[in-house]
Amino acid sequence: MTLDESNVSMTRNDVVAAAARIAPYAHRTPILTSRSINEIVGAELYFKAENLQRVGAFKFRGACNAVFSLTDAQASHGVITHSSGNHAAALALAAKLRGIEALIVMPENAPDIKKAAVAGYGAKIEFCAANEAAREAAVAHAQTLHPFELVHPFNDCRIISGQGTAALELLTDEPELDAIVTPVGGGGLLSGTALAASESTVKVLGTEPANADDAARSFAADKVIPITAPDTIADGLRTSLGDLTFAIIRAQVEQIMTVSEDAIVRAMKLIWERMNIIVEPSAAVPLAALMEQGMPDGIAKAGIILSGGNVDLGHLPWQD
Amino acid sequence: MTLDESNVSMTRNDVVAAAARIAPYAHRTPILTSRSINEIVGAELYFKAENLQRVGAFKFRGACNAVFSLTDAQASHGVITHSSGNHAAALALAAKLRGIEALIVMPENAPDIKKAAVAGYGAKIEFCAANEAAREAAVAHAQTLHPFELVHPFNDCRIISGQGTAALELLTDEPELDAIVTPVGGGGLLSGTALAASESTVKVLGTEPANADDAARSFAADKVIPITAPDTIADGLRTSLGDLTFAIIRAQVEQIMTVSEDAIVRAMKLIWERMNIIVEPSAAVPLAALMEQGMPDGIAKAGIILSGGNVDLGHLPWQD
Repeated sequence: MTLDESNVSMTRNDVVAAAARIAPYAHRTPILTSRSINEIVGAELYFKAENLQRVGAFKFRGACNAVFSLTDAQASHGVITHSSGNHAAALALAAKLRGIEALIVMPENAPDIKKAAVAGYGAKIEFCAANEAAREAAVAHAQTLHPFELVHPFNDCRIISGQGTAALELLTDEPELDAIVTPVGGGGLLSGTALAASESTVKVLGTEPANADDAARSFAADKVIPITAPDTIADGLRTSLGDLTFAIIRAQVEQIMTVSEDAIVRAMKLIWERMNIIVEPSAAVPLAALMEQGMPDGIAKAGIILSGGNVDLGHLPWQD
Repeated sequence: MTLDESNVSMTRNDVVAAAARIAPYAHRTPILTSRSINEIVGAELYFKAENLQRVGAFKFRGACNAVFSLTDAQASHGVITHSSGNHAAALALAAKLRGIEALIVMPENAPDIKKAAVAGYGAKIEFCAANEAAREAAVAHAQTLHPFELVHPFNDCRIISGQGTAALELLTDEPELDAIVTPVGGGGLLSGTALAASESTVKVLGTEPANADDAARSFAADKVIPITAPDTIADGLRTSLGDLTFAIIRAQVEQIMTVSEDAIVRAMKLIWERMNIIVEPSAAVPLAALMEQGMPDGIAKAGIILSGGNVDLGHLPWQD
């Protein structure tokens, strides 16, 4: 099925428009290379360093695009979301930059450092029990009290097109790529990347932990199969695809690769050691997949989106 | 005293020539910024990320310039140096790129990871006792057996001008800086930076651990006063100035700031946390100085050379 046959009418132009919208606020992150990692995988890899993005993750791109897409009337209501991770901080910062209110529903067991980051950007936090139903109920309840604009972490066209801007920059700087490889959790980054690459011959591949393989299962079954009990160190990838992200992924993504937990930690440590940058486990998943499964046929030059770098420096996985 | 009055005849042109010489081999490293660190110090800081340079340190610039400055006849003899740190790996890689032999004299107690890096670039290693006299004796002895070209880690015009290329790039990308701040050990980076900035109004400041404050003492006394027992976590800064580097520094550097060990660890952790990059303790010394002593008068926009990122990820200083 092509994207045109689905109910999703997004195109690469949405990503181009998002890029212009967020340009005054987002970093144009550098593209890094490592000869020693290239030797290990037997290919040329180009790492788009979104761990160096504002709030330390690509999530700022989507949140910024969503907030600056609002009309003044919409923006005057403020924004709301539920997230325990990078989207929470990203939306808080984007709202601060536009000068509007943000209410972030966070699970009460969210790490203190994440709570502090969100509060540091001036957002209000409402705590809820640590499950999806409680989060959604808390958001719905808050919206009955005040007409906040909901900005979902991934299943939102503004978020998808914003996340695609990282790949747009990568393809501008490295037009000869055979493929772009991203992690996939809720699918915002992967679907946005697919849109960014959709008018080229560049293949787009998703990668996820075998322990949270809802995207691979959904891709194979051709319908969304949510994950029930994800048990992975890649905390950014524990969510399941949404209907919007899945529609784009099924139409435009080449393949979903899965990877073991051991491989994720090894790839993460390799990036720290050889590239001297800090990436979170989720960001290491694409390299882990290429190392564990080998380069897919026909791919000699690949871009990798290093999705984020927010880790607890007191608890590194190779020290446990 | 101006530089012209000393016996050193180097100018900014030497740095410009070095930049052209190393351009095919060295990374043009990105310049990174952090709004939260800017808020902490009350200034705009531009970090030149030499931790992302090849071999993970600015040292590759000088070693590459030295090796590619050799005539074919000189190069045919191979190169030799003594170093337990980043210069060893840098010279080994530069020699490999030119296709010539390198002999590295290393103290027998050098970390295994450093030995492996040097060997990995195909250099020969000769071990010696862990003191300066033993190192120099080993080099002298090797040179009686074979006419290696000596490439000193810092007290060498080719090294100094090579190290200055990082500041040259920084000043090209950020021409409005008031100052550039670097760490100072043997003085190669600081003196090269001073040369790069010498035809501008940009002030150049050196920073070093209070526990290895030979540069500050030498600057005040107007003569080289070697350090006797440096006891600092900033292992790259335990060496003392050479006569060449000191001549440039006394003529062209504004000020040498010293900093406590605690401040170094705090600044290092801050860079890891807020910038998501890995820097070694020496690289954190400039920021540590600005945080501990405050911004010097009249400096609102400063460049900082993040000198390197080679650390043992199993032993982080805030986990001891």
